[in-house]
Amino acid sequence: MTAADDARLILARLGVPDTAFSTGGLPCRSPVDGSAGSPVRVHDRSDVDAALSAAAGAFAAWRRVPAPRRGELVRLLGEELRAAKADLAMLVTLEAGKITSEGLGEVQEMIDICDFATGLSRQLYGLTLPSERPGHHMRETWQPLGPVAVISAFNFPVAVWAWNAALALVCGDPVIWKPSEKTPLTALAVHAVAERALARFGDAPDGLLQLLVGGRDVGEALVADPRVALVSATGSTRMGRAVATTVAGRLGRSLLELGGNNAMIVTPSADMDMAVRAIAFSAVGTCGQRCTTLRRLLVHEDVADALIARLASAYSTLPVGDPRAPGTLVGPLIDEDAVKGFEAALAQAVAEGGTVVVGGTRGEGSYVRPAIVRMPAQSAVVRHETFAPILYVLTWRDFDDAVALQNDVPQGLSSCVFTDSVREAEAFLSAWGSDCGIANVNIGPSGAEIGGAFGGEKETGGGRESGSDAWKAYMRRQTQTVNFSADLPLAQGVTFEV
Amino acid sequence: MTAADDARLILARLGVPDTAFSTGGLPCRSPVDGSAGSPVRVHDRSDVDAALSAAAGAFAAWRRVPAPRRGELVRLLGEELRAAKADLAMLVTLEAGKITSEGLGEVQEMIDICDFATGLSRQLYGLTLPSERPGHHMRETWQPLGPVAVISAFNFPVAVWAWNAALALVCGDPVIWKPSEKTPLTALAVHAVAERALARFGDAPDGLLQLLVGGRDVGEALVADPRVALVSATGSTRMGRAVATTVAGRLGRSLLELGGNNAMIVTPSADMDMAVRAIAFSAVGTCGQRCTTLRRLLVHEDVADALIARLASAYSTLPVGDPRAPGTLVGPLIDEDAVKGFEAALAQAVAEGGTVVVGGTRGEGSYVRPAIVRMPAQSAVVRHETFAPILYVLTWRDFDDAVALQNDVPQGLSSCVFTDSVREAEAFLSAWGSDCGIANVNIGPSGAEIGGAFGGEKETGGGRESGSDAWKAYMRRQTQTVNFSADLPLAQGVTFEV
Amino acid sequence: MTAADDARLILARLGVPDTAFSTGGLPCRSPVDGSAGSPVRVHDRSDVDAALSAAAGAFAAWRRVPAPRRGELVRLLGEELRAAKADLAMLVTLEAGKITSEGLGEVQEMIDICDFATGLSRQLYGLTLPSERPGHHMRETWQPLGPVAVISAFNFPVAVWAWNAALALVCGDPVIWKPSEKTPLTALAVHAVAERALARFGDAPDGLLQLLVGGRDVGEALVADPRVALVSATGSTRMGRAVATTVAGRLGRSLLELGGNNAMIVTPSADMDMAVRAIAFSAVGTCGQRCTTLRRLLVHEDVADALIARLASAYSTLPVGDPRAPGTLVGPLIDEDAVKGFEAALAQAVAEGGTVVVGGTRGEGSYVRPAIVRMPAQSAVVRHETFAPILYVLTWRDFDDAVALQNDVPQGLSSCVFTDSVREAEAFLSAWGSDCGIANVNIGPSGAEIGGAFGGEKETGGGRESGSDAWKAYMRRQTQTVNFSADLPLAQGVTFEV
Amino acid sequence: MTAADDARLILARLGVPDTAFSTGGLPCRSPVDGSAGSPVRVHDRSDVDAALSAAAGAFAAWRRVPAPRRGELVRLLGEELRAAKADLAMLVTLEAGKITSEGLGEVQEMIDICDFATGLSRQLYGLTLPSERPGHHMRETWQPLGPVAVISAFNFPVAVWAWNAALALVCGDPVIWKPSEKTPLTALAVHAVAERALARFGDAPDGLLQLLVGGRDVGEALVADPRVALVSATGSTRMGRAVATTVAGRLGRSLLELGGNNAMIVTPSADMDMAVRAIAFSAVGTCGQRCTTLRRLLVHEDVADALIARLASAYSTLPVGDPRAPGTLVGPLIDEDAVKGFEAALAQAVAEGGTVVVGGTRGEGSYVRPAIVRMPAQSAVVRHETFAPILYVLTWRDFDDAVALQNDVPQGLSSCVFTDSVREAEAFLSAWGSDCGIANVNIGPSGAEIGGAFGGEKETGGGRESGSDAWKAYMRRQTQTVNFSADLPLAQGVTFEV
Repeated sequence: MTAADDARLILARLGVPDTAFSTGGLPCRSPVDGSAGSPVRVHDRSDVDAALSAAAGAFAAWRRVPAPRRGELVRLLGEELRAAKADLAMLVTLEAGKITSEGLGEVQEMIDICDFATGLSRQLYGLTLPSERPGHHMRETWQPLGPVAVISAFNFPVAVWAWNAALALVCGDPVIWKPSEKTPLTALAVHAVAERALARFGDAPDGLLQLLVGGRDVGEALVADPRVALVSATGSTRMGRAVATTVAGRLGRSLLELGGNNAMIVTPSADMDMAVRAIAFSAVGTCGQRCTTLRRLLVHEDVADALIARLASAYSTLPVGDPRAPGTLVGPLIDEDAVKGFEAALAQAVAEGGTVVVGGTRGEGSYVRPAIVRMPAQSAVVRHETFAPILYVLTWRDFDDAVALQNDVPQGLSSCVFTDSVREAEAFLSAWGSDCGIANVNIGPSGAEIGGAFGGEKETGGGRESGSDAWKAYMRRQTQTVNFSADLPLAQGVTFEV
Repeated sequence: MTAADDARLILARLGVPDTAFSTGGLPCRSPVDGSAGSPVRVHDRSDVDAALSAAAGAFAAWRRVPAPRRGELVRLLGEELRAAKADLAMLVTLEAGKITSEGLGEVQEMIDICDFATGLSRQLYGLTLPSERPGHHMRETWQPLGPVAVISAFNFPVAVWAWNAALALVCGDPVIWKPSEKTPLTALAVHAVAERALARFGDAPDGLLQLLVGGRDVGEALVADPRVALVSATGSTRMGRAVATTVAGRLGRSLLELGGNNAMIVTPSADMDMAVRAIAFSAVGTCGQRCTTLRRLLVHEDVADALIARLASAYSTLPVGDPRAPGTLVGPLIDEDAVKGFEAALAQAVAEGGTVVVGGTRGEGSYVRPAIVRMPAQSAVVRHETFAPILYVLTWRDFDDAVALQNDVPQGLSSCVFTDSVREAEAFLSAWGSDCGIANVNIGPSGAEIGGAFGGEKETGGGRESGSDAWKAYMRRQTQTVNFSADLPLAQGVTFEV
Repeated sequence: MTAADDARLILARLGVPDTAFSTGGLPCRSPVDGSAGSPVRVHDRSDVDAALSAAAGAFAAWRRVPAPRRGELVRLLGEELRAAKADLAMLVTLEAGKITSEGLGEVQEMIDICDFATGLSRQLYGLTLPSERPGHHMRETWQPLGPVAVISAFNFPVAVWAWNAALALVCGDPVIWKPSEKTPLTALAVHAVAERALARFGDAPDGLLQLLVGGRDVGEALVADPRVALVSATGSTRMGRAVATTVAGRLGRSLLELGGNNAMIVTPSADMDMAVRAIAFSAVGTCGQRCTTLRRLLVHEDVADALIARLASAYSTLPVGDPRAPGTLVGPLIDEDAVKGFEAALAQAVAEGGTVVVGGTRGEGSYVRPAIVRMPAQSAVVRHETFAPILYVLTWRDFDDAVALQNDVPQGLSSCVFTDSVREAEAFLSAWGSDCGIANVNIGPSGAEIGGAFGGEKETGGGRESGSDAWKAYMRRQTQTVNFSADLPLAQGVTFEV
Repeated sequence: MTAADDARLILARLGVPDTAFSTGGLPCRSPVDGSAGSPVRVHDRSDVDAALSAAAGAFAAWRRVPAPRRGELVRLLGEELRAAKADLAMLVTLEAGKITSEGLGEVQEMIDICDFATGLSRQLYGLTLPSERPGHHMRETWQPLGPVAVISAFNFPVAVWAWNAALALVCGDPVIWKPSEKTPLTALAVHAVAERALARFGDAPDGLLQLLVGGRDVGEALVADPRVALVSATGSTRMGRAVATTVAGRLGRSLLELGGNNAMIVTPSADMDMAVRAIAFSAVGTCGQRCTTLRRLLVHEDVADALIARLASAYSTLPVGDPRAPGTLVGPLIDEDAVKGFEAALAQAVAEGGTVVVGGTRGEGSYVRPAIVRMPAQSAVVRHETFAPILYVLTWRDFDDAVALQNDVPQGLSSCVFTDSVREAEAFLSAWGSDCGIANVNIGPSGAEIGGAFGGEKETGGGRESGSDAWKAYMRRQTQTVNFSADLPLAQGVTFEV
């Protein structure tokens, strides 16, 4: 059975209606075997307008629903996701090419954030604080913000929506989702699952969760519209810059998760067995198409040769192939463009003095063999994020230089060090250490937990999603002062008597 | 003695060097009496470049200074501001036209934020949090961000700098200040005071606090430069929109405090004595030139006539005049342009059906008599922020309509209700109440305490300064995970074994 | 079918084993109809010792399980409680005499705290904070504490365990439960449900959740044993005082939820319809046997007569009877002793000058008619908590006096005011307002949500359970400082060089 | 000049009145040279009663003063302490025998906490949180608690008062201080300094800060009195146990800082130079009379001999003597009893198989030479806190055993590890690592910063003072719910309609 056939069965099982497809719609070709499914019906600008009207109406009602009750919807969503886990995971595999374990992991991440957000629905803590004026009470309260547009990328076709939707729902905000044009099927499937949660919940307003499948015009219409209170966009730095500028021009709010160029520093005291495993997973997992994929390996010169040799050996036997097959660790790139990007980057790396240590060849369809490239310096290609499994290796002698190398790229998402030295580890985590939003010790750059805030600095866009107080992006803060005295004192001792 | 002479003496006493002035510089004319002081030397784009280089160097050093020690500098700054309070306050009066009590209040606000930031220097709390993986520790740490550019407006010529600088310094960031072209003298004076604190501190890096006097080109150069990690800009919505767009284009960070159009709702249960006093202060204080000035009065129709009559009476005897004089409550507008704006708005209001109840005339120089205008509807002029003492009055019958009126303007800074009803007060503070960043009960919209977060929504720009966790804008967040086990588990239960 | 028969069927359905019962055990007599079930096997001091050994072992293992994984057990517990909700609720009705809706509400509270604690399992936030010493990192981490003994009372026979157990489990602590001797059956049932969650979870250590049915000796043995890290005890002030003293003598930790003597202040602006309903529910719900039952009604003298008349009318038709019957609002007191206490208190009230307005008679078994007693002053009987449905009414003229009356009792659990005045409401909530742990406006004293911290001051014992940061009682705090520099600076600038 | 003469001059300079002294009062003998000063007038039980009445009155007024204004008093106290720093420090030296640098450090700690508490006065954050009921607002507010009794010990004769007083004042609580009978002079001096701050502040209520010099009876009267809302006691475990029991018996609140028995683990990867310096400071500083003094050295057997040799060498040349003399590192023990305790412990150690490596002799007066004793096992003397400079050394082979040794004492104050291994350091800081309230890496156990919470577990008493949220001990928490709807929903969906 082709991947497209598999997908069709799952979509039917999950209750995606036939009306979601139409001839002339978005073509769906699985990277797994190139098989094509039914084209997906696309929305246009008038659909965007209708969706925004519906979202505005939903917001007026939803913000009045007590947050713990909103949390109940998210809890039910978690239950439905648990029930559909295997199907959704397989669909991720079929549409995005992830191996089975990663597909399951992505759905688990959706479930985790639902559990987390359910608890959050009784928190959303603001502050009470003392006023300097007698007979006054001060409070800071977080209020619902308004409709949230979620623009997601193909590489996490469902988890990113869940990160945003679970928090937004609990915070009192409707959600409009524009998934990547490369992965509409998983979006349809997730929305069908969400419909079940909504049905069990009972009285959620219409327009609370909406899906807009479409191209750039749909995204642009959402981004430009002042009815969208928050644009949460995941994707390339180029896209993010455009979103940020448009939203800023209307003094809106955006939450950006853009490119990464993630490095690992390996020091002599590192546990090399662990380092090899961590490097392999984070450099070739999801075929190098995670935002947090390891792209730069910065090794102390004394241990570089040995480490590279071990990596080359591991790479040479990497099971590349159908991601559905047990044992496969590397599935396909998402499409032909990605393969071309892979090849172009390798060519540029060689032109800049690099030596391909292992891999770098392409196979059938969009399958490639992950590459390791030793580079003489952090040249242009290294400083650029190529969304493919290429690992550049550089060496250093002094730990401060390693940190400087790590920081000397435009992106600032994830970073890590492998070391058993307290001094090195803590320096890496210090104010003068890694400049990234994520900094790990003895863990690869990839694979964040939902309890922490996820996101990065510099060209990564500065947004934070998921745990910690990332929920604040989905609310507006209000400073409230109540005077219950019979007097009218002014702050800072100002006097003014008419 | 002219105001300019007064100012000259104070500047000398505070130690502002002669080199700060130069012929051909920025002209300084006091709104108090129109007298002109020495022109202030202006900086150009090459000064901006030099300042940014110095700030980058200062950052590299300052971020390594322990935060509690950085707090000591801010504590010393607070001490020096206390010592110079009377002089600085008078200079605010002379240059910005504020009455004495308001000038003192503004300096007190600087002092308050220094005390607050000193305490904060041992907090800047991140989180420790449990990892889902055995033998792992997770932490969220806030790190210094980088140089901060502060662009301030004439109406709070010194406090806004202090709000930003006190927090930025404690957070580990150098500060470059571009004051309003209308108020360079107070900036020079504050910098002279800050120099004393730096001298007592001893070993702060060069370039930690810098002042750039200049026009639009200086501001633009700062805003566009990627070396500025955070642009904190206070001013008009037009200016803010430009700043936001430029900064977004380079994926930088901005903190905006833009226009307000602040309303008070008065309900029948309100204490009318207090309401009258609160309205008068918040509508005419600082001659209507606060961001939080009361501009819209929304009164229940049953109490409107009586309230307006009392206000008209109070307005008719308002002491307008030299702000240095004891008893004066209303000083001058900042300049001739402001007077023209005042007159134009009144004319437009009349054209839109409004009736001027009291005031609205201009006197000598830039002195005007504050106006009350009854409006038939929330027409264009009411929805626009005119930086002058005009109070538009509208009536309502149903409390929900009052809230709808309050929210139906593009700005979202401050708001308030006068009522003794728990139901009305709490509804105003609810998720479906005021949409502003500040919401008060039985207090005017004006006069925030530094302990709360200050700022607003919608066209006000979304930034928050001063208290609560506003300091987070001056830092970058880092999610850290440390694996201290001998194993390498992946989040979400993903398995991947080379 | 007798209540005892009903109970037997439910216990069997929930899987409580026969070994839980034994002749000579604790007699179980339902207050609903006096029917007797099988006696419950009791534990002795050697069981306590064995339980504590097992708990110590469980602690050593459980504290190493990542908190989010511990949260998964609590999530499963919530699922199992949802599945058993109707049965558990009916058992609460049968054993404690609560009406159906209250029985369901109590089980819902267990479910709510499980949802909350599941989210909490990724939080348990400590702090990262800046050190005053260069090259140092400071952190505050919350660590598991150790075995927790939960001593619960008959009136919330299952919810209080859940409040404690859900938090304790997530925090890393085993739980030993000693339920009230009056309600062992619900405890057995809950433990059977918990066993299912444990079975689904899979690898929880033995001894994680234990149940000890028994009398005073069992409680005393638990309280005195240093292996119990935290004693969480709910019950009378007399019991709490003994627990506190014993635990203090071994420098252990206790969390006490003791007596309340909860008042409502009614002011002239109150919505009297709502007040009547709130008073009725909070004074007669659970037959006056909640810790938060309304016991004192403090009414402004101008509205007292009218309010009392309405209450008398409502009381006179209160449906008292079998709590299983639809429509019943007042079930039985827990036992004959409680009835005697009810009668004795009424007699004392009359002796102290009170007038019984309505109710005060006893019916069959332990059914009584709730009483309203007008009192001339806050005399001894009013200041004492009688666990029965007696509402004392006092009047006042000045609001400050009302607050003083409210505070002038030894207990400090819950309190409320009915008013529409902002000034009165906020004064009640101010530093000089209610001295209780719970203070409500336009809500009765009873019926807290799990998101807030629950507990009270003075003789109520000072403990806090459930929401907010109540979880901290179940953990120990550790202040950690890591020096990663090559230097050894001392705090406060101390120098000491060998 | 004798130490007593020095002290007399300082007391006069600081304005301590003659009435503070009286014949027949508390004898004051300086441990520095044994010289005796004027006896200090002692208070009796009737003074305690009067003080408590005054404190109750002060509380009623002070809790109404806005917290930021209360913070201003603490800021002024900080200023006055800065001005008196040298005098106070010298008095600490003269009365408690600390070396100059430590005396200065102790006063600096007072200053630091004042700065911290000043900032805190605008925080004291409670929470706003979402209600599950429509039209309801929930809040958690922290309210002033009531009079605080501070019982302090001789070894930190002034800092501990400041930790408590600065927080208590800001929190709205009056403070009654009962200093150690061994150090009344520093208490008198500090109170004279505080009087200046009060005078500058202007309108603080009488009885806000009170000093009661006296013996056990004074302490007991304070502890037993229900008017004391919080007893904050620092001292021996024996004393703390008595305090805890008495306070528990009246259901009051206590904050205990009792004995420590602090260990350092040294692993092979430790920087031995740093370890030697850290050990020397923390074992002999304050002549071994800090609660956080290092008492147990747990060294890996491979590095033990070398480390002990270096320590023995350093100890053999330790400058013991007059603490006023430049260069002195070890001053006297506090009195003859302390010397006897020192000698007795050494004798017991030898009896238990220990070998005195260096030191252990006594000199003139109460001067002794710090001792290092190698012990075969963690025997009784090692598990007991002797307040004198004795360092017991034990060895281990496996890191887990080292942690077990560290934890296997009744006390739980401070602990540390010297290592450069991430695995060891983080394991030490983990849920299964150190069981102490303080855990350091590459820092001795001694010398906490005021920003962290200070205190310990087990027999150390569980209290926390100083930074983090230690201020919560000085306030009471109130959970507030406001219903602003026209409906009366019950939590947990309970229905109850009369």
